[in-house]
Amino acid sequence: MKVTLLIHCPDQSGIISSVTQFFHKREGNILYLDQHVDQEAGIFFMRLECEFEGLAPKLATLKNEIQGELAGRYHMEWSLFQEGIRPRMAIFVSKYNHCLYDLLSRFRSGELEVEIPFIISNHEDLRPIAEQFQIPYHCIPVGKSNKAEAELRQLELLKAQAVDFIVLARYMQIITPRLIDAYPNSIINIHHSFLPAFAGAKPYHAAFKRGVKIIGATSHYVTEDLDAGPIIEQDVTAVSHVHTVRDFIAKGRDLEKIVLARAVKLHIARKTMVYNNKTVIFS
Amino acid sequence: MKVTLLIHCPDQSGIISSVTQFFHKREGNILYLDQHVDQEAGIFFMRLECEFEGLAPKLATLKNEIQGELAGRYHMEWSLFQEGIRPRMAIFVSKYNHCLYDLLSRFRSGELEVEIPFIISNHEDLRPIAEQFQIPYHCIPVGKSNKAEAELRQLELLKAQAVDFIVLARYMQIITPRLIDAYPNSIINIHHSFLPAFAGAKPYHAAFKRGVKIIGATSHYVTEDLDAGPIIEQDVTAVSHVHTVRDFIAKGRDLEKIVLARAVKLHIARKTMVYNNKTVIFS
Amino acid sequence: MKVTLLIHCPDQSGIISSVTQFFHKREGNILYLDQHVDQEAGIFFMRLECEFEGLAPKLATLKNEIQGELAGRYHMEWSLFQEGIRPRMAIFVSKYNHCLYDLLSRFRSGELEVEIPFIISNHEDLRPIAEQFQIPYHCIPVGKSNKAEAELRQLELLKAQAVDFIVLARYMQIITPRLIDAYPNSIINIHHSFLPAFAGAKPYHAAFKRGVKIIGATSHYVTEDLDAGPIIEQDVTAVSHVHTVRDFIAKGRDLEKIVLARAVKLHIARKTMVYNNKTVIFS
Amino acid sequence: MKVTLLIHCPDQSGIISSVTQFFHKREGNILYLDQHVDQEAGIFFMRLECEFEGLAPKLATLKNEIQGELAGRYHMEWSLFQEGIRPRMAIFVSKYNHCLYDLLSRFRSGELEVEIPFIISNHEDLRPIAEQFQIPYHCIPVGKSNKAEAELRQLELLKAQAVDFIVLARYMQIITPRLIDAYPNSIINIHHSFLPAFAGAKPYHAAFKRGVKIIGATSHYVTEDLDAGPIIEQDVTAVSHVHTVRDFIAKGRDLEKIVLARAVKLHIARKTMVYNNKTVIFS
Repeated sequence: MKVTLLIHCPDQSGIISSVTQFFHKREGNILYLDQHVDQEAGIFFMRLECEFEGLAPKLATLKNEIQGELAGRYHMEWSLFQEGIRPRMAIFVSKYNHCLYDLLSRFRSGELEVEIPFIISNHEDLRPIAEQFQIPYHCIPVGKSNKAEAELRQLELLKAQAVDFIVLARYMQIITPRLIDAYPNSIINIHHSFLPAFAGAKPYHAAFKRGVKIIGATSHYVTEDLDAGPIIEQDVTAVSHVHTVRDFIAKGRDLEKIVLARAVKLHIARKTMVYNNKTVIFS
Repeated sequence: MKVTLLIHCPDQSGIISSVTQFFHKREGNILYLDQHVDQEAGIFFMRLECEFEGLAPKLATLKNEIQGELAGRYHMEWSLFQEGIRPRMAIFVSKYNHCLYDLLSRFRSGELEVEIPFIISNHEDLRPIAEQFQIPYHCIPVGKSNKAEAELRQLELLKAQAVDFIVLARYMQIITPRLIDAYPNSIINIHHSFLPAFAGAKPYHAAFKRGVKIIGATSHYVTEDLDAGPIIEQDVTAVSHVHTVRDFIAKGRDLEKIVLARAVKLHIARKTMVYNNKTVIFS
Repeated sequence: MKVTLLIHCPDQSGIISSVTQFFHKREGNILYLDQHVDQEAGIFFMRLECEFEGLAPKLATLKNEIQGELAGRYHMEWSLFQEGIRPRMAIFVSKYNHCLYDLLSRFRSGELEVEIPFIISNHEDLRPIAEQFQIPYHCIPVGKSNKAEAELRQLELLKAQAVDFIVLARYMQIITPRLIDAYPNSIINIHHSFLPAFAGAKPYHAAFKRGVKIIGATSHYVTEDLDAGPIIEQDVTAVSHVHTVRDFIAKGRDLEKIVLARAVKLHIARKTMVYNNKTVIFS
Repeated sequence: MKVTLLIHCPDQSGIISSVTQFFHKREGNILYLDQHVDQEAGIFFMRLECEFEGLAPKLATLKNEIQGELAGRYHMEWSLFQEGIRPRMAIFVSKYNHCLYDLLSRFRSGELEVEIPFIISNHEDLRPIAEQFQIPYHCIPVGKSNKAEAELRQLELLKAQAVDFIVLARYMQIITPRLIDAYPNSIINIHHSFLPAFAGAKPYHAAFKRGVKIIGATSHYVTEDLDAGPIIEQDVTAVSHVHTVRDFIAKGRDLEKIVLARAVKLHIARKTMVYNNKTVIFS
């Protein structure tokens, strides 16, 4: 059995020693340990992978013991994941297909260790791609009058399929607190600019107008503030005066799909932690 | 004799043909020609290098003929530079020394084909570096009460030494319209962020707070809008949660000096043109 | 009618002037002109886009006149392409699917202005992807005994479908002179290293062993020397000691597909010229 | 008192737990811990920073106890450094000045926490820069006949000044085993290519001839195999057909100085470990 433990708690002396001893006593072999201290905020973060050979403790037992022996003493918030259990990922799309193609190709190639119970869209346009990759596709149109209702239907589907996290693969609707509260730090968005520059609509047009020499894409967890959630991953590419807005958009597509895929992989691998509207990304 | 011609004018048919014929008739050999059309704005840009062997026309004659045969017909704005005449560059600094060290080292190595008549600073701190590199150093303190007066003294020095362009190598004072008007598109600033993100003061602190995964630096021509002038050059570097604000600043120093140096070299080589608050940067 | 003209010839005075006049006289509007002189080799290169409104010359007439009025005089090698005529691209694959998925997704999204008459593979593995995207798939196994025969069958298919260029999307067989001669500068390969480092087999393993801090991918035209043809495009990504060979391979997949797609797009847009085993890539 | 501990040893269960307990028992506060396991080689690496408040153990005592309680049990190779003790760095140069200017500017700005007892060169050319920055400069010419003798004189100077490590800032002589053996993993070189491509002489010329689209620089520890030592840091920059060899050299200068400076900083911060001709670079 192999487990991954994520911890954050107020920084104090002795945590690493206590945690490593905890696993050592249970004959676990620590394969990976990374820690980080935010000196300013006084917070300690840790990610640890531990392998148990032979007689491994039961997961429930292990969780109880972590709570009993470690969590209380150090005021830890923590989570424990067992390797081999694939998280369930829903994809939300609108009309742009490049991120969807990219995610589904990676999924079919075995690159993403998830289950994808379904795709939700507010349009019918991308149904053929879902069919091509044999993933269920639910079209839930969103208009001014039915926004709340549409969201209820989304939530129903998400619950029915026990979805763990959501990927907005260029989904062009604003997510409301109801959904965000149901999926805290579990909705991954791709924004087509180097945030915080050019938040909001039409960032490539804005970047073109400003005459920037580099454009970017940003993947972040969705929070109530539009395009202001904790950043998971960013990347950029050079542009010049020869490029039109259309060129920006074409170059941006490649950025968007790469940056989104990296963020999704980090999330799946439990390498992201969120605090103070920022992320710790373990290596 | 070798000359560089920069042109911009309303886009229309036949310009390239007319201009190349103009030089061909005078037995000039075109070494380099690059053109760009901003389709949206309908503006044509061109940079051309031409070499005359043997009996070259006089520069003044050439200028007259360009005006007479080309400029009027196509409503051109143009400038002609003769190779070998070094532009005169003033450097403004405050207390940070990394950009100054970098520029002066490049200058002494022969990398920058300019004259540097002097350095101006609002502080005494960097005088030793000026002395080390044997460049005159004028300390003109700037306070609330004497800002206008200080600027007049700067202008006097700039005129007395026939300065062509100014490099703000982390000069921590806001430049006022009086100076900007005297040096249109000729004051190069380095801002320590990936503009338009984090304009204004303390960009590294703001970037740290926002939790970005990439930081940048931007070199631009100074206009009346703070940090909003035409961008000449940008570059970025990756950061992560392990980096403190101090690390951002240290990494940023390397970005700043490289980006500023590139912008200065482009300006010296007459490879920059400005329009609509953007730049065309020729290769 | 819009045409693109590519020229290379010995460098000499007056070429640009002659060529631009040639189009100006025919009431063509030059939309784009880029030229390059390799000073060392004394070769002149040019790419020009010209639009004819109203009464455009016939393509055949234009070709005759270019040959008659320009090519002879300047010893030009040249080619002329009419916009709107899609080149026909064959894809060769083996077992890796990421580049194939990427190319077909881009094709279906309208990003690649080509026809894809078929995919050739030496294995059956990727047939489902071809079917998923509804592209004909020919499996031509290649063994030691039937290599020549297999190639003849490939050539037959290529001719029958009038294929213009070939993309080796991680095709794991060496291409022989017979095919190379039939498609000079028209077979695009993606090699999974930063060439010339790690040419040949298993470059990620070699890079890992050497302890490099950056890995790359290189797209090039295939010549008789393995992995030594003219480079079209390269890109890199950072790695560190935490990455295993498997991580290199995973990171490399993203590089490979992006670099290959960029090279294919440049080729389609007629922005590549080859000489002295190098490329000129127009902007 | 703050110390940094570097360890490598055969991988086995319980090391992290033992080491962290060791410091915890002595009331040390672990500020930073990073570990790495090379699964293939079965080697465990660790870097740990620990702060002792109040009654800190003596360094000698601590060293004895590490040896007694930890090192033997786990067959560790280890080193312990006390913060605040600046390593002594010698710089070797020939005629190129950009890396020297860069290192000395950083040193004077307080960026490099070292002592620089002297610069050694085989030429007189850069003496004025040494004088400008007030660092002793020893010119030791190296010819065919006096190579061994010259090296002896270098060694004498290095010993007399208790030099800890050497930076070859574009020093154009091959270092022989005598010097390498005296400074194992302590001679940092900058090579002006993306190694292993273009090892040896004139890499920019070779890169130009090959038509690469990206050039690089590599900093590595010097071993007996030329340009084949453990890589510390690499970086790259894009080039195109418009760039001449001279442009490659100019762009390369900026790469070289940045890459060398980063490597030197990593070495000073004790963030590098060497094994199997590779490096582990801690964050």
